[in-house]
Amino acid sequence: MLYIEREIAEQPDVIARLLDEEYKSVQQIAAAIRKFDPAFVSIAARGTSDNAARYAQYLLGAKAHLPVALATPSLHTLYAAPPNLKRALVIGVSQSGRAEDVRQVIADACKQGALTLAITNDDESPMAGEAEFHLSIHAGEEISVAATKTYTAQLAALAMLGTALVDDEEMFQALRYLPHWIGETLEHAETIADRVERYRYMERFIVLGRGYNYSTAFEISLKIKELCYITGEEYSEADFRHGPIALLNPGFPVIVVTPAGKALPLMLDLLEKLCERQAEPIVISNDVTALNMAQTPMMIPEDIPEWLSSLVAVIPGQLFAMNLALVRGHEVDQPRGLNKVTVTK
Amino acid sequence: MLYIEREIAEQPDVIARLLDEEYKSVQQIAAAIRKFDPAFVSIAARGTSDNAARYAQYLLGAKAHLPVALATPSLHTLYAAPPNLKRALVIGVSQSGRAEDVRQVIADACKQGALTLAITNDDESPMAGEAEFHLSIHAGEEISVAATKTYTAQLAALAMLGTALVDDEEMFQALRYLPHWIGETLEHAETIADRVERYRYMERFIVLGRGYNYSTAFEISLKIKELCYITGEEYSEADFRHGPIALLNPGFPVIVVTPAGKALPLMLDLLEKLCERQAEPIVISNDVTALNMAQTPMMIPEDIPEWLSSLVAVIPGQLFAMNLALVRGHEVDQPRGLNKVTVTK
Repeated sequence: MLYIEREIAEQPDVIARLLDEEYKSVQQIAAAIRKFDPAFVSIAARGTSDNAARYAQYLLGAKAHLPVALATPSLHTLYAAPPNLKRALVIGVSQSGRAEDVRQVIADACKQGALTLAITNDDESPMAGEAEFHLSIHAGEEISVAATKTYTAQLAALAMLGTALVDDEEMFQALRYLPHWIGETLEHAETIADRVERYRYMERFIVLGRGYNYSTAFEISLKIKELCYITGEEYSEADFRHGPIALLNPGFPVIVVTPAGKALPLMLDLLEKLCERQAEPIVISNDVTALNMAQTPMMIPEDIPEWLSSLVAVIPGQLFAMNLALVRGHEVDQPRGLNKVTVTK
Repeated sequence: MLYIEREIAEQPDVIARLLDEEYKSVQQIAAAIRKFDPAFVSIAARGTSDNAARYAQYLLGAKAHLPVALATPSLHTLYAAPPNLKRALVIGVSQSGRAEDVRQVIADACKQGALTLAITNDDESPMAGEAEFHLSIHAGEEISVAATKTYTAQLAALAMLGTALVDDEEMFQALRYLPHWIGETLEHAETIADRVERYRYMERFIVLGRGYNYSTAFEISLKIKELCYITGEEYSEADFRHGPIALLNPGFPVIVVTPAGKALPLMLDLLEKLCERQAEPIVISNDVTALNMAQTPMMIPEDIPEWLSSLVAVIPGQLFAMNLALVRGHEVDQPRGLNKVTVTK
């Protein structure tokens, strides 16, 4: 069995463990944040972790009314001209906790008097030591180079934080259902594996999402690129209409991430445009209309609230990328030219 | 003559006019910003204008120490759950001033007590009316669907604002040189046109930048996609190393935007990696080492400070995209499936 296959399958357990182990710690962090009353949140991250930060933009924005910026580590490292973060909650997200540029953002933020939080998979990492608070994602060792379980665990950690900040019982209940929903989605793994052969010679692709699933579009795109070496692009539904839609021609594969929710009507309208242009829609959804418009439908459970759908909708994308890499004959656990820990300045 | 050709050529005049006409107004806006003392800046924009916002992240961050967030219009429109922007300077950037979602961000920000500024090419537009301050980019009518002169004018407006905020005489002097540097770059237009035939059958591409020219990578990539319908991706040098570098194989065309400055050493190191993997570097730079590593070098003037290089380094990219569209036989001024004004929710 491949490591990545095992790691994808572990996700319900990882999330369940995280919900148990960090419940109290998240409450304490939320209390500190409320006391600090940040004017905004700045999140420093790279690669997959940056996609977790994209999720936080919508989650913390919509639920806790916190504006979220994605940090610009270059200002801290290359230009040695850090922006003033003293009125911010600064969060560093890194699987390894060893992203040097992210650590530098946290260090500068500490010096400026910001409230700082590291979210990592390693209690002993430099980032965990640097930040005032540390939230461990308890994902266990991730051996496959392409991150899967650590991504959903980062999302879950951020979802727990958002929930604790607004202290909403309905949200807590929904969080507890996550392992179940992820497990249900994993039951479709074979169906996805069977469908993927059709895309053996796909040479390019686009992934679209909006709102909470903008992050999902980015993450699925990254997985396919890392594992299959195919050129792809990811867009919000709105940005896509502002130019890149010109790319579409008949047969163009477009992965559309569109769980039921506020973003669905706009996504359905865009799906119609894709069909008019005879593109090939691959749809991740729990909405029948959306799934019916797909050449390849990938189902997720019906009753997921939109704010948590990002943790579930990414799963079919992970399975799609892994199976496509297998069908193409690639080394799945160790893609060419990548290391598990990437240290950038 | 194509409209886009004329509009690209107009850029020195547009910037010179903008510098003249809005000098005083920018001083007043800067004074209001200093008085308001924002904890951060949030910029709402779509498409090309969003790339101008990316430039502002580095410029306002490094020069004025202001953290800059890219707004999430979905939170204002789809989710009707706007984040709290009362301690922010909120800037809306839109060529037409008719981006409905961007206008909504400004309207919500006004209600919340934020300081608001619209940067548009139309004094009479809804956005110009909605914001407390308006900065006109004075670019004149832009007829070609793909934005060129309005992009550099948006960047110049933001550069003027950053300069006024720090009130630095050396920066003012440099700004005044911009039309000259852009004019010098345009002199290489024919050399670029001659080189482009080589890329007639290019099927995919990557554009890389870092720091101030992260925005340039995005904008050049968007121009090629809009005009040539080729799939491409844009990355910061750091994010590229975190996964997408796996895509590279011999002959892969990679446009590397790397003017002299703080980002250059890292970009040179990455260029070496590209050469090792026998990718095809197309380099926009004023650094001899970088240009020498290129299959296709595209020169910009030597003495541009890095913070203004984004306004100049984009020009060879505009010319490359336009000429490639011509060589491929596309309708350059009216790409398929695009309108000049895109209204998104």
